[in-house]
Amino acid sequence: METPQETAHGYSANKDALLKRLRRIEGQIRGIARMVEEDTYCIDVLTQVSAVNAALHKVSLNLVEDHIGHCVVGAAEESQRTGDPSIVDHKVKEASAAIGRLLR
Amino acid sequence: METPQETAHGYSANKDALLKRLRRIEGQIRGIARMVEEDTYCIDVLTQVSAVNAALHKVSLNLVEDHIGHCVVGAAEESQRTGDPSIVDHKVKEASAAIGRLLR
Amino acid sequence: METPQETAHGYSANKDALLKRLRRIEGQIRGIARMVEEDTYCIDVLTQVSAVNAALHKVSLNLVEDHIGHCVVGAAEESQRTGDPSIVDHKVKEASAAIGRLLR
Amino acid sequence: METPQETAHGYSANKDALLKRLRRIEGQIRGIARMVEEDTYCIDVLTQVSAVNAALHKVSLNLVEDHIGHCVVGAAEESQRTGDPSIVDHKVKEASAAIGRLLR
Repeated sequence: METPQETAHGYSANKDALLKRLRRIEGQIRGIARMVEEDTYCIDVLTQVSAVNAALHKVSLNLVEDHIGHCVVGAAEESQRTGDPSIVDHKVKEASAAIGRLLR
Repeated sequence: METPQETAHGYSANKDALLKRLRRIEGQIRGIARMVEEDTYCIDVLTQVSAVNAALHKVSLNLVEDHIGHCVVGAAEESQRTGDPSIVDHKVKEASAAIGRLLR
Repeated sequence: METPQETAHGYSANKDALLKRLRRIEGQIRGIARMVEEDTYCIDVLTQVSAVNAALHKVSLNLVEDHIGHCVVGAAEESQRTGDPSIVDHKVKEASAAIGRLLR
Repeated sequence: METPQETAHGYSANKDALLKRLRRIEGQIRGIARMVEEDTYCIDVLTQVSAVNAALHKVSLNLVEDHIGHCVVGAAEESQRTGDPSIVDHKVKEASAAIGRLLR
Protein backbone atom coordinates (compact mmCIF):
# COMPACT_ATOMS: atom_id res chain seq x y z
CA MET A 1 0.00 0.00 0.00
CA GLU A 2 1.45 3.37 -0.97
CA THR A 3 1.24 6.52 1.17
CA PRO A 4 -1.36 8.91 -0.31
CA GLN A 5 0.78 11.95 -1.21
CA GLU A 6 3.81 10.02 -2.50
CA THR A 7 2.67 9.27 -6.08
CA ALA A 8 -0.02 10.72 -8.32
CA HIS A 9 -2.30 7.87 -9.43
CA GLY A 10 -4.00 6.80 -12.59
CA TYR A 11 -7.22 8.46 -11.45
CA SER A 12 -5.55 11.76 -10.50
CA ALA A 13 -6.20 13.20 -13.96
CA ASN A 14 -9.94 12.36 -13.63
CA LYS A 15 -10.26 13.17 -9.94
CA ASP A 16 -13.03 15.74 -10.25
CA ALA A 17 -15.16 13.51 -12.48
CA LEU A 18 -14.64 10.61 -10.06
CA LEU A 19 -15.60 12.73 -7.02
CA LYS A 20 -18.70 13.96 -8.87
CA ARG A 21 -19.77 10.35 -9.57
CA LEU A 22 -19.22 9.39 -5.92
CA ARG A 23 -21.31 12.32 -4.67
CA ARG A 24 -24.08 11.35 -7.06
CA ILE A 25 -23.97 7.73 -5.78
CA GLU A 26 -24.11 9.05 -2.21
CA GLY A 27 -27.25 10.99 -3.17
CA GLN A 28 -28.76 7.89 -4.78
CA ILE A 29 -28.22 5.92 -1.55
CA ARG A 30 -29.97 8.69 0.45
CA GLY A 31 -32.79 8.55 -2.11
CA ILE A 32 -33.19 4.80 -1.53
CA ALA A 33 -33.32 5.38 2.24
CA ARG A 34 -36.11 7.94 1.70
CA MET A 35 -38.04 5.41 -0.44
CA VAL A 36 -37.74 2.86 2.38
CA GLU A 37 -38.88 5.43 4.99
CA GLU A 38 -41.90 6.20 2.77
CA ASP A 39 -42.73 2.45 2.43
CA THR A 40 -42.26 2.51 -1.34
CA TYR A 41 -42.95 -0.74 -3.21
CA CYS A 42 -39.99 -3.19 -2.92
CA ILE A 43 -39.54 -3.60 -6.69
CA ASP A 44 -39.11 0.16 -7.12
CA VAL A 45 -36.52 0.19 -4.31
CA LEU A 46 -34.71 -2.75 -5.98
CA THR A 47 -34.69 -0.86 -9.29
CA GLN A 48 -32.82 2.00 -7.62
CA VAL A 49 -30.37 -0.41 -5.97
CA SER A 50 -29.60 -1.82 -9.44
CA ALA A 51 -28.99 1.74 -10.67
CA VAL A 52 -26.43 2.27 -7.87
CA ASN A 53 -24.79 -1.07 -8.79
CA ALA A 54 -24.44 0.17 -12.37
CA ALA A 55 -22.97 3.52 -11.24
CA LEU A 56 -20.46 1.74 -8.95
CA HIS A 57 -19.63 -0.58 -11.84
CA LYS A 58 -18.53 2.45 -13.88
CA VAL A 59 -16.46 3.83 -11.00
CA SER A 60 -14.72 0.46 -10.60
CA LEU A 61 -14.00 0.12 -14.30
CA ASN A 62 -12.53 3.63 -14.55
CA LEU A 63 -10.32 2.94 -11.54
CA VAL A 64 -9.16 -0.38 -13.05
CA GLU A 65 -8.39 1.19 -16.44
CA ASP A 66 -6.55 4.10 -14.83
CA HIS A 67 -4.59 1.71 -12.60
CA ILE A 68 -3.50 -0.55 -15.48
CA GLY A 69 -2.68 2.41 -17.71
CA HIS A 70 -0.72 4.29 -15.07
CA CYS A 71 0.57 2.04 -12.29
CA VAL A 72 1.03 -1.26 -14.21
CA VAL A 73 2.49 0.43 -17.28
CA GLY A 74 4.73 2.59 -15.06
CA ALA A 75 5.96 -0.52 -13.26
CA ALA A 76 6.65 -2.22 -16.62
CA GLU A 77 8.86 0.70 -17.60
CA GLU A 78 10.63 0.63 -14.22
CA SER A 79 11.21 -3.14 -14.50
CA GLN A 80 12.70 -2.54 -17.94
CA ARG A 81 14.93 0.28 -16.63
CA THR A 82 16.13 -1.64 -13.56
CA GLY A 83 16.07 -5.17 -15.03
CA ASP A 84 13.93 -6.24 -12.04
CA PRO A 85 10.75 -8.01 -13.29
CA SER A 86 9.35 -8.36 -9.75
CA ILE A 87 8.27 -4.70 -9.77
CA VAL A 88 5.73 -5.21 -12.58
CA ASP A 89 4.85 -8.76 -11.52
CA HIS A 90 3.69 -7.39 -8.14
CA LYS A 91 1.53 -4.71 -9.80
CA VAL A 92 -0.06 -7.25 -12.17
CA LYS A 93 -0.90 -9.59 -9.28
CA GLU A 94 -2.40 -6.65 -7.34
CA ALA A 95 -4.53 -5.56 -10.31
CA SER A 96 -5.71 -9.12 -10.91
CA ALA A 97 -6.70 -9.56 -7.24
CA ALA A 98 -8.64 -6.26 -7.32
CA ILE A 99 -10.44 -7.34 -10.51
CA GLY A 100 -11.20 -10.69 -8.89
CA ARG A 101 -12.88 -8.94 -5.94
CA LEU A 102 -14.99 -6.87 -8.34
CA LEU A 103 -16.06 -9.96 -10.30
CA ARG A 104 -17.35 -11.57 -7.12
CA MET B 1 -46.07 0.53 -9.13
CA GLU B 2 -47.97 0.73 -5.81
CA THR B 3 -48.40 3.99 -3.89
CA PRO B 4 -46.14 4.01 -0.82
CA GLN B 5 -48.65 4.11 2.03
CA GLU B 6 -51.20 1.68 0.52
CA THR B 7 -49.61 -1.64 1.52
CA ALA B 8 -46.96 -2.61 4.09
CA HIS B 9 -44.14 -4.38 2.27
CA GLY B 10 -41.97 -7.40 2.84
CA TYR B 11 -39.21 -5.16 4.19
CA SER B 12 -41.48 -3.21 6.54
CA ALA B 13 -40.71 -5.62 9.40
CA ASN B 14 -36.95 -5.05 8.89
CA LYS B 15 -37.13 -1.37 8.06
CA ASP B 16 -34.82 -0.13 10.80
CA ALA B 17 -32.13 -2.69 9.98
CA LEU B 18 -32.40 -1.83 6.28
CA LEU B 19 -32.13 1.93 6.97
CA LYS B 20 -29.10 1.29 9.20
CA ARG B 21 -27.38 -0.64 6.37
CA LEU B 22 -28.15 2.14 3.90
CA ARG B 23 -26.72 4.81 6.20
CA ARG B 24 -23.57 2.69 6.63
CA ILE B 25 -23.22 2.36 2.84
CA GLU B 26 -23.68 6.12 2.50
CA GLY B 27 -20.82 6.56 4.98
CA GLN B 28 -18.65 4.10 3.03
CA ILE B 29 -19.18 6.10 -0.16
CA ARG B 30 -18.15 9.31 1.63
CA GLY B 31 -15.09 7.42 2.90
CA ILE B 32 -14.14 6.46 -0.67
CA ALA B 33 -14.50 10.09 -1.76
CA ARG B 34 -12.14 11.13 1.06
CA MET B 35 -9.61 8.49 -0.09
CA VAL B 36 -9.75 9.92 -3.62
CA GLU B 37 -9.35 13.50 -2.34
CA GLU B 38 -6.27 12.32 -0.39
CA ASP B 39 -4.80 10.61 -3.51
CA THR B 40 -4.88 7.19 -1.88
CA TYR B 41 -3.48 4.28 -3.92
CA CYS B 42 -6.01 3.03 -6.54
CA ILE B 43 -6.00 -0.59 -5.33
CA ASP B 44 -6.99 0.51 -1.81
CA VAL B 45 -9.83 2.62 -3.26
CA LEU B 46 -10.95 -0.38 -5.36
CA THR B 47 -10.93 -2.58 -2.26
CA GLN B 48 -13.40 -0.20 -0.59
CA VAL B 49 -15.59 -0.12 -3.71
CA SER B 50 -15.76 -3.95 -3.56
CA ALA B 51 -16.81 -3.67 0.10
CA VAL B 52 -19.70 -1.37 -0.91
CA ASN B 53 -20.67 -3.83 -3.67
CA ALA B 54 -20.84 -6.60 -1.05
CA ALA B 55 -22.95 -4.44 1.31
CA LEU B 56 -25.36 -3.54 -1.52
CA HIS B 57 -25.48 -7.21 -2.45
CA LYS B 58 -26.88 -7.98 1.04
CA VAL B 59 -29.42 -5.16 0.81
CA SER B 60 -30.60 -6.49 -2.56
CA LEU B 61 -30.88 -10.05 -1.34
CA ASN B 62 -32.86 -9.06 1.75
CA LEU B 63 -35.25 -7.02 -0.40
CA VAL B 64 -35.68 -9.92 -2.85
CA GLU B 65 -36.34 -12.45 -0.06
CA ASP B 66 -38.80 -10.08 1.67
CA HIS B 67 -40.55 -9.40 -1.64
CA ILE B 68 -40.94 -13.09 -2.54
CA GLY B 69 -42.01 -14.01 0.99
CA HIS B 70 -44.52 -11.18 1.32
CA CYS B 71 -45.69 -9.84 -2.02
CA VAL B 72 -45.42 -12.99 -4.19
CA VAL B 73 -46.80 -15.28 -1.50
CA GLY B 74 -49.60 -12.76 -0.74
CA ALA B 75 -50.47 -12.63 -4.45
CA ALA B 76 -50.54 -16.46 -4.60
CA GLU B 77 -53.08 -16.52 -1.78
CA GLU B 78 -55.15 -13.81 -3.48
CA SER B 79 -55.08 -15.70 -6.79
CA GLN B 80 -56.28 -18.79 -4.95
CA ARG B 81 -59.07 -16.82 -3.21
CA THR B 82 -60.24 -15.06 -6.38
CA GLY B 83 -59.44 -17.82 -8.91
CA ASP B 84 -57.50 -15.21 -10.94
CA PRO B 85 -53.94 -16.53 -11.64
CA SER B 86 -52.91 -13.27 -13.34
CA ILE B 87 -52.42 -11.62 -9.93
CA VAL B 88 -49.55 -13.92 -8.91
CA ASP B 89 -48.21 -14.28 -12.47
CA HIS B 90 -47.64 -10.50 -12.58
CA LYS B 91 -45.79 -10.53 -9.24
CA VAL B 92 -43.57 -13.46 -10.32
CA LYS B 93 -42.67 -11.68 -13.59
CA GLU B 94 -41.88 -8.50 -11.63
CA ALA B 95 -39.66 -10.37 -9.14
CA SER B 96 -37.85 -12.17 -11.96
CA ALA B 97 -37.20 -8.91 -13.83
CA ALA B 98 -35.82 -7.30 -10.64
CA ILE B 99 -33.55 -10.32 -10.03
CA GLY B 100 -32.41 -10.11 -13.67
CA ARG B 101 -31.36 -6.47 -13.19
CA LEU B 102 -29.40 -7.43 -10.08
CA LEU B 103 -27.63 -10.27 -11.90
CA ARG B 104 -26.43 -7.88 -14.56
CA MET C 1 -33.86 -31.80 -1.81
CA GLU C 2 -36.70 -33.56 -3.66
CA THR C 3 -36.26 -36.86 -5.50
CA PRO C 4 -36.28 -36.25 -9.28
CA GLN C 5 -39.39 -38.15 -10.34
CA GLU C 6 -41.61 -37.11 -7.39
CA THR C 7 -42.84 -33.69 -8.63
CA ALA C 8 -42.82 -31.95 -12.03
CA HIS C 9 -40.87 -28.70 -11.67
CA GLY C 10 -41.29 -25.15 -12.79
CA TYR C 11 -38.94 -25.78 -15.71
CA SER C 12 -40.69 -28.98 -16.84
CA ALA C 13 -42.90 -27.02 -19.24
CA ASN C 14 -39.80 -25.44 -20.85
CA LYS C 15 -37.56 -28.50 -20.65
CA ASP C 16 -36.77 -28.76 -24.35
CA ALA C 17 -35.86 -25.08 -24.64
CA LEU C 18 -33.67 -25.36 -21.53
CA LEU C 19 -31.88 -28.47 -22.84
CA LYS C 20 -31.32 -26.71 -26.19
CA ARG C 21 -29.71 -23.73 -24.39
CA LEU C 22 -27.48 -26.05 -22.36
CA ARG C 23 -26.32 -27.91 -25.48
CA ARG C 24 -25.50 -24.56 -27.13
CA ILE C 25 -23.49 -23.50 -24.08
CA GLU C 26 -21.65 -26.84 -24.16
CA GLY C 27 -20.76 -26.11 -27.81
CA GLN C 28 -19.59 -22.59 -26.89
CA ILE C 29 -17.25 -24.04 -24.25
CA ARG C 30 -15.81 -26.47 -26.83
CA GLY C 31 -15.38 -23.49 -29.16
CA ILE C 32 -13.39 -21.61 -26.51
CA ALA C 33 -11.16 -24.67 -26.01
CA ARG C 34 -10.48 -24.76 -29.76
CA MET C 35 -9.56 -21.03 -29.68
CA VAL C 36 -7.07 -21.74 -26.87
CA GLU C 37 -5.60 -24.72 -28.75
CA GLU C 38 -5.14 -22.44 -31.79
CA ASP C 39 -3.43 -19.75 -29.66
CA THR C 40 -6.12 -17.18 -30.42
CA TYR C 41 -5.63 -13.69 -28.95
CA CYS C 42 -6.62 -13.55 -25.24
CA ILE C 43 -9.13 -10.71 -25.67
CA ASP C 44 -11.07 -12.72 -28.28
CA VAL C 45 -11.13 -15.73 -25.93
CA LEU C 46 -12.36 -13.46 -23.10
CA THR C 47 -15.11 -12.12 -25.36
CA GLN C 48 -16.41 -15.68 -25.87
CA VAL C 49 -16.23 -16.38 -22.12
CA SER C 50 -18.41 -13.30 -21.54
CA ALA C 51 -20.88 -14.66 -24.11
CA VAL C 52 -21.10 -17.94 -22.14
CA ASN C 53 -21.61 -15.94 -18.93
CA ALA C 54 -24.54 -14.14 -20.58
CA ALA C 55 -26.06 -17.43 -21.83
CA LEU C 56 -25.74 -19.00 -18.35
CA HIS C 57 -27.26 -15.85 -16.89
CA LYS C 58 -30.42 -16.48 -18.98
CA VAL C 59 -30.56 -20.14 -17.94
CA SER C 60 -30.30 -19.10 -14.27
CA LEU C 61 -32.99 -16.46 -14.58
CA ASN C 62 -35.42 -18.81 -16.31
CA LEU C 63 -34.85 -21.43 -13.62
CA VAL C 64 -35.38 -18.82 -10.86
CA GLU C 65 -38.60 -17.51 -12.44
CA ASP C 66 -39.92 -21.04 -13.01
CA HIS C 67 -39.05 -22.00 -9.43
CA ILE C 68 -40.77 -18.97 -7.89
CA GLY C 69 -43.81 -19.32 -10.15
CA HIS C 70 -44.20 -23.06 -9.59
CA CYS C 71 -42.56 -24.25 -6.38
CA VAL C 72 -42.88 -21.13 -4.19
CA VAL C 73 -46.42 -20.35 -5.36
CA GLY C 74 -47.39 -24.04 -4.95
CA ALA C 75 -45.99 -24.00 -1.42
CA ALA C 76 -47.96 -20.82 -0.63
CA GLU C 77 -51.16 -22.55 -1.67
CA GLU C 78 -50.26 -25.61 0.39
CA SER C 79 -49.48 -23.46 3.44
CA GLN C 80 -52.88 -21.81 3.03
CA ARG C 81 -54.62 -25.20 2.68
CA THR C 82 -52.86 -26.75 5.67
CA GLY C 83 -52.45 -23.63 7.83
CA ASP C 84 -48.73 -24.47 8.11
CA PRO C 85 -46.65 -21.39 7.06
CA SER C 86 -43.37 -23.29 7.42
CA ILE C 87 -43.94 -24.99 4.05
CA VAL C 88 -43.73 -21.74 2.07
CA ASP C 89 -41.16 -20.15 4.43
CA HIS C 90 -38.75 -23.01 3.60
CA LYS C 91 -39.24 -22.55 -0.16
CA VAL C 92 -38.71 -18.78 0.08
CA LYS C 93 -35.47 -19.27 2.06
CA GLU C 94 -34.29 -21.84 -0.50
CA ALA C 95 -35.06 -19.51 -3.44
CA SER C 96 -33.32 -16.60 -1.73
CA ALA C 97 -30.19 -18.69 -1.02
CA ALA C 98 -30.07 -19.83 -4.66
CA ILE C 99 -30.42 -16.22 -5.87
CA GLY C 100 -27.68 -15.21 -3.43
CA ARG C 101 -25.30 -17.78 -4.98
CA LEU C 102 -26.09 -16.45 -8.44
CA LEU C 103 -25.45 -12.85 -7.37
CA ARG C 104 -22.00 -13.78 -6.14
CA MET D 1 -7.57 -8.73 -33.35
CA GLU D 2 -4.34 -10.65 -33.83
CA THR D 3 -4.06 -13.73 -36.02
CA PRO D 4 -3.79 -16.88 -33.82
CA GLN D 5 -0.31 -18.16 -34.72
CA GLU D 6 1.44 -14.76 -34.88
CA THR D 7 2.29 -14.23 -31.16
CA ALA D 8 2.38 -16.50 -28.12
CA HIS D 9 -0.10 -15.17 -25.54
CA GLY D 10 -0.17 -14.67 -21.83
CA TYR D 11 -2.06 -17.93 -21.39
CA SER D 12 0.31 -19.96 -23.59
CA ALA D 13 2.40 -20.96 -20.56
CA ASN D 14 -0.72 -22.26 -18.78
CA LYS D 15 -2.45 -23.70 -21.84
CA ASP D 16 -2.81 -27.27 -20.56
CA ALA D 17 -4.25 -26.15 -17.22
CA LEU D 18 -6.68 -23.83 -19.05
CA LEU D 19 -7.80 -26.60 -21.45
CA LYS D 20 -8.29 -28.96 -18.49
CA ARG D 21 -10.54 -26.38 -16.76
CA LEU D 22 -12.55 -25.88 -19.94
CA ARG D 23 -13.08 -29.63 -20.40
CA ARG D 24 -14.24 -29.88 -16.76
CA ILE D 25 -16.70 -27.01 -17.32
CA GLU D 26 -17.96 -28.76 -20.46
CA GLY D 27 -18.57 -31.87 -18.34
CA GLN D 28 -20.39 -29.80 -15.70
CA ILE D 29 -22.73 -28.40 -18.37
CA ARG D 30 -23.48 -31.94 -19.60
CA GLY D 31 -24.15 -32.89 -15.97
CA ILE D 32 -26.69 -30.05 -15.64
CA ALA D 33 -28.43 -31.22 -18.82
CA ARG D 34 -28.69 -34.73 -17.34
CA MET D 35 -30.22 -33.28 -14.14
CA VAL D 36 -32.81 -31.45 -16.25
CA GLU D 37 -33.59 -34.61 -18.27
CA GLU D 38 -34.10 -36.48 -14.95
CA ASP D 39 -36.45 -33.72 -13.63
CA THR D 40 -34.14 -32.92 -10.72
CA TYR D 41 -35.34 -30.24 -8.27
CA CYS D 42 -34.76 -26.69 -9.65
CA ILE D 43 -32.71 -25.51 -6.66
CA ASP D 44 -30.24 -28.37 -7.12
CA VAL D 45 -29.91 -27.50 -10.82
CA LEU D 46 -29.36 -23.82 -9.90
CA THR D 47 -26.64 -24.85 -7.43
CA GLN D 48 -24.75 -26.55 -10.26
CA VAL D 49 -25.19 -23.50 -12.53
CA SER D 50 -23.61 -21.37 -9.78
CA ALA D 51 -20.70 -23.83 -9.65
CA VAL D 52 -20.15 -23.38 -13.41
CA ASN D 53 -20.30 -19.59 -12.95
CA ALA D 54 -17.56 -19.87 -10.32
CA ALA D 55 -15.39 -22.07 -12.58
CA LEU D 56 -15.81 -19.65 -15.51
CA HIS D 57 -14.97 -16.79 -13.13
CA LYS D 58 -11.58 -18.44 -12.49
CA VAL D 59 -10.95 -18.97 -16.21
CA SER D 60 -11.75 -15.29 -16.89
CA LEU D 61 -9.53 -14.04 -14.10
CA ASN D 62 -6.57 -16.16 -15.23
CA LEU D 63 -6.98 -14.92 -18.80
CA VAL D 64 -7.16 -11.27 -17.59
CA GLU D 65 -4.06 -11.65 -15.40
CA ASP D 66 -2.12 -13.38 -18.20
CA HIS D 67 -3.21 -10.70 -20.68
CA ILE D 68 -2.17 -7.79 -18.46
CA GLY D 69 1.10 -9.47 -17.49
CA HIS D 70 2.02 -10.43 -21.03
CA CYS D 71 0.29 -8.32 -23.66
CA VAL D 72 -0.13 -5.02 -21.76
CA VAL D 73 3.33 -5.17 -20.22
CA GLY D 74 4.83 -6.16 -23.59
CA ALA D 75 3.09 -3.21 -25.23
CA ALA D 76 4.42 -0.88 -22.49
CA GLU D 77 7.95 -2.00 -23.28
CA GLU D 78 7.35 -1.56 -27.01
CA SER D 79 5.91 1.93 -26.47
CA GLN D 80 9.01 2.81 -24.46
CA ARG D 81 11.32 1.41 -27.17
CA THR D 82 9.53 3.15 -30.05
CA GLY D 83 8.41 6.29 -28.22
CA ASP D 84 4.83 5.58 -29.46
CA PRO D 85 2.42 5.58 -26.47
CA SER D 86 -0.54 4.56 -28.66
CA ILE D 87 0.66 0.94 -28.68
CA VAL D 88 0.13 0.48 -24.93
CA ASP D 89 -2.88 2.81 -24.78
CA HIS D 90 -4.70 0.51 -27.24
CA LYS D 91 -3.90 -2.59 -25.17
CA VAL D 92 -5.06 -0.91 -21.93
CA LYS D 93 -8.37 0.12 -23.55
CA GLU D 94 -8.84 -3.44 -24.87
CA ALA D 95 -8.15 -4.97 -21.44
CA SER D 96 -10.52 -2.51 -19.76
CA ALA D 97 -13.31 -3.26 -22.25
CA ALA D 98 -12.86 -7.01 -21.71
CA ILE D 99 -12.98 -6.55 -17.92
CA GLY D 100 -16.10 -4.40 -18.34
CA ARG D 101 -17.84 -7.23 -20.23
CA LEU D 102 -16.92 -9.66 -17.45
CA LEU D 103 -18.25 -7.32 -14.76
CA ARG D 104 -21.61 -7.17 -16.50
